Amino acid sequence: MKATRYEGNKTFNVIEKDLEAPVKGDVRIKVAYSGVCGTDVHIYHGMMDKRVNIPITIGHEMSGTIDALGENVIGYEVGDKVVVRPLDDRGVKPSDKGFNHICEDLKFIGIDSPGSMQQYWNVPAFTLHKLRTATDLKLAALIEPLSVAVHDVRLSELKSGETAVILGGGPIGLLVAMVAKDTGANVIVSEVNPVRIAKAKDLGLDAVNPVKMDLIQYVKEKTEGRLADVVFEVAGVQPALDIMTEVAGIRGRIVMVAIHGEKKNVDLFKFFWKELKLIGARVYEKEDYEKSIQLITDNELHFEKLITDIQPLTKIQEVFENIDKKPDGLKILMDCQQ
Amino acid sequence: MKATRYEGNKTFNVIEKDLEAPVKGDVRIKVAYSGVCGTDVHIYHGMMDKRVNIPITIGHEMSGTIDALGENVIGYEVGDKVVVRPLDDRGVKPSDKGFNHICEDLKFIGIDSPGSMQQYWNVPAFTLHKLRTATDLKLAALIEPLSVAVHDVRLSELKSGETAVILGGGPIGLLVAMVAKDTGANVIVSEVNPVRIAKAKDLGLDAVNPVKMDLIQYVKEKTEGRLADVVFEVAGVQPALDIMTEVAGIRGRIVMVAIHGEKKNVDLFKFFWKELKLIGARVYEKEDYEKSIQLITDNELHFEKLITDIQPLTKIQEVFENIDKKPDGLKILMDCQQ
Ligand SMILES: NC(=O)c1ccc[n+]([C@@H]2O[C@H](COP(=O)([O-])OP(=O)(O)OC[C@H]3O[C@@H](n4cnc5c(N)ncnc54)[C@H](O)[C@@H]3O)[C@@H](O)[C@H]2O)c1
Ligand SMILES: NC(=O)c1ccc[n+]([C@@H]2O[C@H](COP(=O)([O-])OP(=O)(O)OC[C@H]3O[C@@H](n4cnc5c(N)ncnc54)[C@H](O)[C@@H]3O)[C@@H](O)[C@H]2O)c1
Ligand SMILES: [Zn+2]
Ligand SMILES: [Zn+2]
Repeated sequence: MKATRYEGNKTFNVIEKDLEAPVKGDVRIKVAYSGVCGTDVHIYHGMMDKRVNIPITIGHEMSGTIDALGENVIGYEVGDKVVVRPLDDRGVKPSDKGFNHICEDLKFIGIDSPGSMQQYWNVPAFTLHKLRTATDLKLAALIEPLSVAVHDVRLSELKSGETAVILGGGPIGLLVAMVAKDTGANVIVSEVNPVRIAKAKDLGLDAVNPVKMDLIQYVKEKTEGRLADVVFEVAGVQPALDIMTEVAGIRGRIVMVAIHGEKKNVDLFKFFWKELKLIGARVYEKEDYEKSIQLITDNELHFEKLITDIQPLTKIQEVFENIDKKPDGLKILMDCQQ
Repeated sequence: MKATRYEGNKTFNVIEKDLEAPVKGDVRIKVAYSGVCGTDVHIYHGMMDKRVNIPITIGHEMSGTIDALGENVIGYEVGDKVVVRPLDDRGVKPSDKGFNHICEDLKFIGIDSPGSMQQYWNVPAFTLHKLRTATDLKLAALIEPLSVAVHDVRLSELKSGETAVILGGGPIGLLVAMVAKDTGANVIVSEVNPVRIAKAKDLGLDAVNPVKMDLIQYVKEKTEGRLADVVFEVAGVQPALDIMTEVAGIRGRIVMVAIHGEKKNVDLFKFFWKELKLIGARVYEKEDYEKSIQLITDNELHFEKLITDIQPLTKIQEVFENIDKKPDGLKILMDCQQ
């Protein structure tokens, strides 16, 4: 079988290795597609060399079929289409209060242990979600990031008729916008990259450039002065943090999806003055995966528009180099059987 | 009648003026006691000269009895003991979504219009809450700040058995701690001023100095590793902002009570990582006043311990000068009939 390996120093190798039999409780998955996530790009850039165990196979946004069952695996058969929820929560403790998906000793599969950028992948059966036989495995590779978006929207308690402003129209921001719109909310995407603004519009979303127009005024007009009921911070930059507290109306909820590696400036006065809420959101829970699988299965939202490229696994080095050269693509899938 | 006036430049005057008849919808209150609030001290320091209309009578934490009724006032009689909820929300608009207490055009009575540091005070009847005849008017002057604490604890959704850490043991922090404890929570107060630590202990609260010991370790031990379910930021300083995200456990709620005039550094990564919530809280709503009145009426919590001094209204200048010299006192009441 073929497997890719991140070797450090912006380098991936493709190696040949033997198929491994799944141990007790595990299954072996024949990986169909594995999406490239921003985190994978971070790893490629060497930003997570302290955390990842080099050399390592990365990847956690995938779809595939079951290829072999380890002992004690029930409820699955060879040939089943599946996706993996890449959270290893076996270290959960009472002090985690039942929030397994963010438990203190959580291991993220594909970062803290080997991932899906290979032809076959062995994972614990408890991470699996079964798909319908008819499900398109290309679209299914979007279930993981879509589950992030479903989780974010769920935690925001966004209701039909409310207005949501999404700061950042990258893959996660656009998925959040799609789920928010599907909830019945009025959605405004704020994005600075013209290619991504065009993509958002192609998805039927209202998308504007906050550098070229007055976002606050725009949202005010669209809401008869109420401003945003919910803001999603999915850009990860200081200007988004500056505007999030401005664009949120009285008792607005701001969901912090972006990952800020350093302490940042926040207008806490506005939190007090308008009784705003900030809601941290990380990955997903089981129910978010179920909802996400349903959305992908129905595909009423045309998720195929988010897939901007599909490349053979063997081209992994080129793919990551090209992402650096031209960051306009949205979701690139690796075809793990080629 | 006697009235005090802030004249700017750290100066109060006491003037003699005629009693005013209450206009339609207003009542005239014979003010019993008026507490000195941190905001009053801010005004005295000239920090709010842009907002207040100098010369102005300030004060908003008060108790009194009705002295005269304007036209169209129903449900009240001369002699009724009352407190004022000093929020003039007559400018409320649909875009305020029904949150009158924080409506965009809210006027805070005692800051944006004349306050209670005078012998008689005319206010709209809609601001009144009636007290029982037996209620102690000294304690009743604490109803306004206590309502802040009741509001904060309500918005935190603190439950019995949970652990709350209160950062800052000033008047508001101690009231929050008392209400939180009364809710059945385990309460830890973090305070740096030894006099205030002693006061907290005298109130039966667990109080520690975060400069002299490891607060995070202490909370960890007290909670079997869960850390705080709820944190109240009532100190208003950067060290409190730094520790609030550390001392909160998974899915912890942090209530922002303190008023931060400038943008401050916040660890947003921790919000993401532990799925923390930040909840902005400002003043109070009607139901908070009702709960606060009940707590003062019952006085099972011994609120009298918070009153560290009572001075005649005519000594206002001295009182404010002394607060600057020795900030250990907790709640100072002005006796408005002396
Ligand atoms: N909470 C979670 O579990 C979770 C999961 C996945 C990703 N994330 C985080 O979500 C964020 C977004 O992920 P992504 O993959 O979509 O990243 P991305 O970098 O592709 O998207 C960010 C977008 O924000 C845009 N942007 C930059 N400045 C802006 C501004 N001032 N206003 C508006 N938009 C601006 C960029 O052009 C870009 O398109 C990242 O911080 C990522 O780490 C969080
Ligand atoms: N949200 C609202 O509606 C509302 C209403 C009233 C007051 N407030 C705000 O609440 C805050 C508290 O009000 P207060 O009157 O009790 O103020 P205060 O200044 O008397 O109390 C703050 C306390 O924090 C302590 N402190 C300082 N550094 C500390 C640290 N590192 N750790 C722990 N404690 C520390 C101080 O010693 C002081 O006792 C202020 O910011 C005030 O503006 C808000
Ligand atoms: Zn990812
Ligand atoms: Zn006050």
